[in-house]
Amino acid sequence: MTSDDTPKARARAVRADVRRNRARLLAAARETFERDGAGASLEAVARGAGVGIGTLYRHFPTRQDLLEALLAGVYDDLAAAARDLMVTPAPDEALMTWLRTFISEVTAFPGMAASAMVSLQDERPEPSRSWRAMHGAGEALFARAQRAGDAPAGVSFTDVLRLAGAIAAVTEREPVAAGRLLSLAATGVMPGKAR
Amino acid sequence: MTSDDTPKARARAVRADVRRNRARLLAAARETFERDGAGASLEAVARGAGVGIGTLYRHFPTRQDLLEALLAGVYDDLAAAARDLMVTPAPDEALMTWLRTFISEVTAFPGMAASAMVSLQDERPEPSRSWRAMHGAGEALFARAQRAGDAPAGVSFTDVLRLAGAIAAVTEREPVAAGRLLSLAATGVMPGKAR
Repeated sequence: MTSDDTPKARARAVRADVRRNRARLLAAARETFERDGAGASLEAVARGAGVGIGTLYRHFPTRQDLLEALLAGVYDDLAAAARDLMVTPAPDEALMTWLRTFISEVTAFPGMAASAMVSLQDERPEPSRSWRAMHGAGEALFARAQRAGDAPAGVSFTDVLRLAGAIAAVTEREPVAAGRLLSLAATGVMPGKAR
Repeated sequence: MTSDDTPKARARAVRADVRRNRARLLAAARETFERDGAGASLEAVARGAGVGIGTLYRHFPTRQDLLEALLAGVYDDLAAAARDLMVTPAPDEALMTWLRTFISEVTAFPGMAASAMVSLQDERPEPSRSWRAMHGAGEALFARAQRAGDAPAGVSFTDVLRLAGAIAAVTEREPVAAGRLLSLAATGVMPGKAR
């Protein structure tokens, strides 16, 4: 029995295989969704990854599971971006930059923003670790803007994120319109007329 | 030949029949969409109206055509509501009331707001007469709030409507959340920090 043939080594090989398939499925999903939108054929995703549809469903029982897994990578990047922005001098600029990045990242393919918004419903399912990391890092950025007097107290960051997500969802392929709507939401349709 | 049997009378009868079918299809569509969402089976709509699927497609070649026809009735009501609000004393309250009504009206069934938003894309198809009427009446309300100093100059009403539509689309079945997000968009995430 060589060292490659012990039960431990075989289990390790299986796990490596599972990880590799998962990574391939995610790469193929991103590519397929960027071409055909979030409603793209899952068979096409499996084909792109070079695995059977059964393997896809073992990794991702539902389309939303696959979308959430793709989004997890995006949320990790956004969490890192928020942490980087914490050390920039202007809290208002930092928050706006991050919200613009958020909108741009969650509109990489049609239907992506709508999928991200599932985590922001009032009766949302348990959010993922990546989502919570992004939410926490973004919230710190928002709290800093609140302390600086740039953002109103008493507003929940979840609502800020939800408003940005709403803009993302309706402007998917129109980055210019997204920027305009974000500016409007930032300055307010009726500033100073709180109600 | 009786008066009911002239070519003119026959044509009139056919037109009445066409109008009746159209009205039945719209009523059945509203009911079916409220139950199953905007993606509901069009066969179920035709069945509900007591007509064949061919008749449905003659009236509404695509699902979006059917949705637009349903929305036209909503837009007419919203145009009337905006005109009524023009004579109320507080321009800011009037605008907020109308935006709240807009959100509530375009979320009567899942997928309705997303469908309404098609008319607000930067590269939008030719908007319907009803849409233009609503846009014009809402714009007058917004212009009055601008003149009163309640809303910023230089903002397009289309963007205001689009922001409200975005909120509607992500909060479809959550009126409380819709109200919170509309208030946030009204007062601004970062009021006074125009950019």
